[in-house]
Amino acid sequence: MGDKDDIFNKRQSILIANVMVDGKAADIFVNEGGAIAAVGEGVRVQHKGEADLVIDGDGAVALPGLANTHTHAAMSLLRGYADDMILQDWLGQKIWPLEAHLTGNDVYWGTKLACLEMIKTGTTAFNDMYFMMDEAARAVDEAGIRAVLCYGFIDLFNPEKRESECKATEKLAAQIRVMNNPRIRAAAGPHAIYTVSPEGLKWCAEFAKEQKIGIHIHLSETENEVTDCIAQHGKRPAALLDECSILTQKTIAAHCCWLEDEECALLGKRGVSVSHNPASNMKLATNRAMPTRQLMAAGANVCLGTDGCASNNNLDMFEEMKTAALLQKFFWNDPTVLPAPVALAMATANGAKALGFGTGTLAIGSPADIVLVSARTSCNTPLHNVTSNLVYSCSGAAVETTICDGRVLMLNREIPGEEEILAGAAKAAHELVNRSQSA
Amino acid sequence: MGDKDDIFNKRQSILIANVMVDGKAADIFVNEGGAIAAVGEGVRVQHKGEADLVIDGDGAVALPGLANTHTHAAMSLLRGYADDMILQDWLGQKIWPLEAHLTGNDVYWGTKLACLEMIKTGTTAFNDMYFMMDEAARAVDEAGIRAVLCYGFIDLFNPEKRESECKATEKLAAQIRVMNNPRIRAAAGPHAIYTVSPEGLKWCAEFAKEQKIGIHIHLSETENEVTDCIAQHGKRPAALLDECSILTQKTIAAHCCWLEDEECALLGKRGVSVSHNPASNMKLATNRAMPTRQLMAAGANVCLGTDGCASNNNLDMFEEMKTAALLQKFFWNDPTVLPAPVALAMATANGAKALGFGTGTLAIGSPADIVLVSARTSCNTPLHNVTSNLVYSCSGAAVETTICDGRVLMLNREIPGEEEILAGAAKAAHELVNRSQSA
Repeated sequence: MGDKDDIFNKRQSILIANVMVDGKAADIFVNEGGAIAAVGEGVRVQHKGEADLVIDGDGAVALPGLANTHTHAAMSLLRGYADDMILQDWLGQKIWPLEAHLTGNDVYWGTKLACLEMIKTGTTAFNDMYFMMDEAARAVDEAGIRAVLCYGFIDLFNPEKRESECKATEKLAAQIRVMNNPRIRAAAGPHAIYTVSPEGLKWCAEFAKEQKIGIHIHLSETENEVTDCIAQHGKRPAALLDECSILTQKTIAAHCCWLEDEECALLGKRGVSVSHNPASNMKLATNRAMPTRQLMAAGANVCLGTDGCASNNNLDMFEEMKTAALLQKFFWNDPTVLPAPVALAMATANGAKALGFGTGTLAIGSPADIVLVSARTSCNTPLHNVTSNLVYSCSGAAVETTICDGRVLMLNREIPGEEEILAGAAKAAHELVNRSQSA
Repeated sequence: MGDKDDIFNKRQSILIANVMVDGKAADIFVNEGGAIAAVGEGVRVQHKGEADLVIDGDGAVALPGLANTHTHAAMSLLRGYADDMILQDWLGQKIWPLEAHLTGNDVYWGTKLACLEMIKTGTTAFNDMYFMMDEAARAVDEAGIRAVLCYGFIDLFNPEKRESECKATEKLAAQIRVMNNPRIRAAAGPHAIYTVSPEGLKWCAEFAKEQKIGIHIHLSETENEVTDCIAQHGKRPAALLDECSILTQKTIAAHCCWLEDEECALLGKRGVSVSHNPASNMKLATNRAMPTRQLMAAGANVCLGTDGCASNNNLDMFEEMKTAALLQKFFWNDPTVLPAPVALAMATANGAKALGFGTGTLAIGSPADIVLVSARTSCNTPLHNVTSNLVYSCSGAAVETTICDGRVLMLNREIPGEEEILAGAAKAAHELVNRSQSA
């Protein structure tokens, strides 16, 4: 290998030798266009001498980069700021007052920190909802991973506020179009039915359709959301969203804890992606887990997300796979629910499908979003079953190397500039709290 | 620092400079006797030049070594062998048939692997129940951590088998006495009320009292255990155990999911330690979580365990702290249940109290069981709240350095002989499966 400038963050042909793909010994060849050109046994011989960069996998497990389908990345700055509180106190007394002091600089550093953590734990694409998202886009652009970014549209049923939210949504879509970075896409982000008016929801649906972009929304996280919806609209949340044309094949609905069977059927019929957020749901005591079996049976695309760091408190999708499998078994009282291969599919192929970047497999022709999980670690010893180990035993710390869009972002756990990002984010978080306390 | 032989696995005076203790900048001085001799600000100045070994903590969080109060260490060899199955199928079709082929060599390598994983994730003491425990003791002796070891006493209500179980229990206690290693203690290990006769339980209680050793038992893991007990004995499991004199201040009862309030009161009154095993309970769908609040209110010592790797599938107590806090909030439907400081206490002071080695604090005079958790990592960035980060954000992979009984076992994630242990355990596991399949 050459010096570090030759390795990181640039397109080049890469031979990844001596890895395991689908349980078999294999090599992977990535071409200069950032696509997987060959995968399987003997690839290192066929492509000998061709690669600009050779990575020795040392028996590591190769996976498509993981996809985190629901987060608020910049909330990494709030990690550990408040925990163990009743939802309304937590939001009203701690989270919202601090967020009121957030600047674009904070969103930039929070998203930088989040991207760093995702790269460290094997996530190469995420679905983000927050504000000052141009700063998030700048951070994602620099980090080298993929993101679907939306402005959290919250009109609070106020027509004037709706106007400004529409403008903010349009502005972000325009800004991202101008960036012209294929790794970054915009979405419409109507926050939830209890924060956005039906008119706002309809506008978002129309805008997303017109712009050919996705929709990102919270759905039925708490029982209150459902009972309030029935009281106000005489119908359950999924039906209300459907009336507002929000439920589409390009929609990602997060949480989906309190769905009844007919709502699962509706989401399946519309081809919606549903993002399970088990750690957040447990920490905030939602009192019900997503009905994953019913949603899968209905044809919905069930994927996985960490939610933001204020309610999780990390972005490790390996941990989230395990938490999902455990919560589903426990809540639905059946140890056969959500077996390891399904958890892994939720975090890889299903999540990738939801985000629409064409990633999520290690097939020839796919974009080279590849992570290598160490086999030389206790979490992969013994190796009776690779998938079980990935889901139940390993954390994201077992990820050694992360490649996104044909570029090496982490090699043997080294990420260029890591210390600066940690320091910059720590400084921003510290100053944010100071501002809020002196206000 | 000198060469590696000068660093690892030997008693020496150690200055740990530049760490955080209870949220404050501090240094720690460990004397040649393996005890904490000084802790606080300025210790590095007071003890300048005195230490055989100086460790720069680089701002790391110093904690007492974690205590895992319920596991079956050698089951690390079964990690990933079978998952996602109904309990009886899982045991009857997969786990027991494989265990029938276990040799002493397997128990040795499985326990070596388990100790390696525990050292890597900051655990310095554990409570173990399995068989061929002389081989487990040999592995623990070599690994350098602490363990309370018991033979899993299972008489299946058969007087002849009871005789042999008594002999096996006596033999292990004698073997451990002969080892004369203060890090290793024996306990009596009556497996559970559904596998051990009342006579067997009484014998274990008497033997433990006579030998001044602890008792390790499974209690009320499943609802079946409770309903069967009531049908058979006309009383609930805790009452039955109390009649057999099993409930003592030196007893650790694992799981304790299906306890009623009066059972919590009884366990509290007897001063029993109860080991919460949330990941295992979720994975095997026990359908109820330990009533931690009631047990704490009753005065029981509530601590934490991972259970064995067949039902978890790792031994990371940081992950277990988070799972405990999340499960308690979710099951009891209250986000204020089991806040982060309580989860941390369960894994440190409470667990240490249960095991009785006098560890569990960083106070002067305490045995030097110390782990350093990196502050230069995304899981500790920002550092609004150290305890929150330890419980909710970090995994055991953030542990950099592990010291037990005044000996450095891991420094900057390096453990001498790690590769040999991984290879030896992988080989043993592979051969075990081969033996079972050719049988």
